[in-house]
Amino acid sequence: MSATLELAMALISRPSVTPEDAGCQALMMDRLSALGFDPEPLNFGDTQNFWARRGRQGPVFCFAGHTDVVPPGPEDAWHSPPFEPSIRDGQLYGRGAADMKGSLAAMITATEAFVSKHPDHKGSIAYLITSDEEGPATHGTVKVVETLEQRGEKMDWCLVGEPSSTQRLADVVKNGRRGSHGCRLRVKGIQGHVAYPHLARNPVHEALPALAELVAEEWDQGNEFFPPTTFQISNIHAGTGATNVIPGTLEVLFNFRFSTETTHQALEQRVEEILNRHDLDYDIEWTLSGPPFLTPGGALLDAARQAIRDIMGYATELSTSGGTSDGRFIAPTGAQVLELGPLNATIHKVNECVGVEDLEHLSRIYERLLELLLT
Amino acid sequence: MSATLELAMALISRPSVTPEDAGCQALMMDRLSALGFDPEPLNFGDTQNFWARRGRQGPVFCFAGHTDVVPPGPEDAWHSPPFEPSIRDGQLYGRGAADMKGSLAAMITATEAFVSKHPDHKGSIAYLITSDEEGPATHGTVKVVETLEQRGEKMDWCLVGEPSSTQRLADVVKNGRRGSHGCRLRVKGIQGHVAYPHLARNPVHEALPALAELVAEEWDQGNEFFPPTTFQISNIHAGTGATNVIPGTLEVLFNFRFSTETTHQALEQRVEEILNRHDLDYDIEWTLSGPPFLTPGGALLDAARQAIRDIMGYATELSTSGGTSDGRFIAPTGAQVLELGPLNATIHKVNECVGVEDLEHLSRIYERLLELLLT
Repeated sequence: MSATLELAMALISRPSVTPEDAGCQALMMDRLSALGFDPEPLNFGDTQNFWARRGRQGPVFCFAGHTDVVPPGPEDAWHSPPFEPSIRDGQLYGRGAADMKGSLAAMITATEAFVSKHPDHKGSIAYLITSDEEGPATHGTVKVVETLEQRGEKMDWCLVGEPSSTQRLADVVKNGRRGSHGCRLRVKGIQGHVAYPHLARNPVHEALPALAELVAEEWDQGNEFFPPTTFQISNIHAGTGATNVIPGTLEVLFNFRFSTETTHQALEQRVEEILNRHDLDYDIEWTLSGPPFLTPGGALLDAARQAIRDIMGYATELSTSGGTSDGRFIAPTGAQVLELGPLNATIHKVNECVGVEDLEHLSRIYERLLELLLT
Repeated sequence: MSATLELAMALISRPSVTPEDAGCQALMMDRLSALGFDPEPLNFGDTQNFWARRGRQGPVFCFAGHTDVVPPGPEDAWHSPPFEPSIRDGQLYGRGAADMKGSLAAMITATEAFVSKHPDHKGSIAYLITSDEEGPATHGTVKVVETLEQRGEKMDWCLVGEPSSTQRLADVVKNGRRGSHGCRLRVKGIQGHVAYPHLARNPVHEALPALAELVAEEWDQGNEFFPPTTFQISNIHAGTGATNVIPGTLEVLFNFRFSTETTHQALEQRVEEILNRHDLDYDIEWTLSGPPFLTPGGALLDAARQAIRDIMGYATELSTSGGTSDGRFIAPTGAQVLELGPLNATIHKVNECVGVEDLEHLSRIYERLLELLLT
């Protein structure tokens, strides 16, 4: 059994449902300490994190990831227990196998191999590991990044182990993500009886033309890296069930997934212009989940492309699709950020798995990346 | 204390919260039996009703009303207990004083006075009394009217005792009511993640332009008796609170209050044309609460106008405004239907009341109406 497979299994057998870590980080820190890292727990609230670094010089290459996993869901639907790693037909099964304990194992074994060959490598290798990426993501990467910024400690390159691959290992590298901006809109009217509409003001009626305009709006056309910005209403509510009452308030929740062609401030302004043009009486509350980030080029991206070509023999594709990741918190520090990890077909599902052979290849890609950047 | 006031107090002291009757009808039937009526209980489900008639000939004049009342609401807010009739400053207070136990008392004392003077009056006097007008109104007037139709028993003129007056007694007579037509619309989409709108179909987005068109539509312009038909959305719901999920279904409840310039079938057709033009995938469910009714003229209306002029010394106004009443179930039999009762300022509120003097005048108006029509 390879070192990567063994470590992945050891991590999966620790039931670290978010925000639990269940001993995964202790295991990783032990392995890193043995290599000359100085791991430092940075726990906030219910969340365990650590920062570890080998080397005092720049440039700093950082592996970023999380030890927490999403809940297993209905255990009956799993062919083997979710926290008992099991190998069948070349696949390693278990909650977190692909998202992202396989990546964590590959990072450690890649680092071990690299350090044994290059004990005096250039620059520094670092780890930024959290246990709340699958949860609210408020006490993890955000807080560690804040701590590092206060110290003036910078990363140059950050490789997030999120499962970016779609058909075969490393076919896709994520070099950015769309931003996510949420809004709660309350349109105010005057409640009344449906038989006397002249004594009431129906907020649904007043808001409909504005909402129809928001839905029809083209926010941007995207660019080389991003699809066009999208607007989606996730919730709309007015009325308490009574069929003879004109409701007093309409509440609408909507969300933007936005490209680097716009900003959250510009989106807010355009929405409010539309609402104001329709003379609505409203309250509005915005929640920025994360701005978009993009690593359009640079040494990290060049090295990732070459490492994949060297190990896998094929070219990789860039993508910015999907939800959000902790990369959104790291990119604003100025670091180049990429996401590169195993196939994402089974993540967050029952019978989550990662290819045993992919684990080995992933470790070798990570090691090659270290060689290209730090030797 | 006058006979009308005394009877109104006796009725108010019986706590007949819908669909309870609490002995009100027994009291009325006793008084009518003494006058030569043959009261006949016609109970259906949880609802007590009676039909009573004096005379075998036509034309048939019918007093229609209900003994049930709406709940008293917060009893602390009443200045005197809602089911203990109390007189202050010329007003009789108690739940049901205006809606419509005052009218019921006036009907009985008017009939007593009329019969004592005209024991051999023309035609017939009838009573149609129910106890579920304030509730679902499914086991009351509807069922009694069905029973009468099965027997071939017809009313020519029907006076409903609903509180029609606004500023002073009998200033307004309702000679019709708008129809009420309700709809539950479910627009179907495909649920998905807000980050992947191309894999979902947002039913809110698809429905908005159609809903905006329904709100902007002019359904008719009303006529001499009716204001224009109105459309009101009472409820709109989609989404379960999660801000990252595109909802799979949108539910909208709306209601038409419609004039005699259109029909419920025409409204359904026009709504569905708009929905179909927008290519929506939807289920729709219509509930007709009642068609509009109108008594544009005739002997009953002429007599009511003259009786009010004779007793009150002023002219009355016709109106079709307000909600629905049991008149909607009687008018389709071909009867001329009017609503005439006390001031409606306090109905369904705490400290409901009726003027003590108005009770006497109302009894005299009802008696005069009987004289004009049946002597």
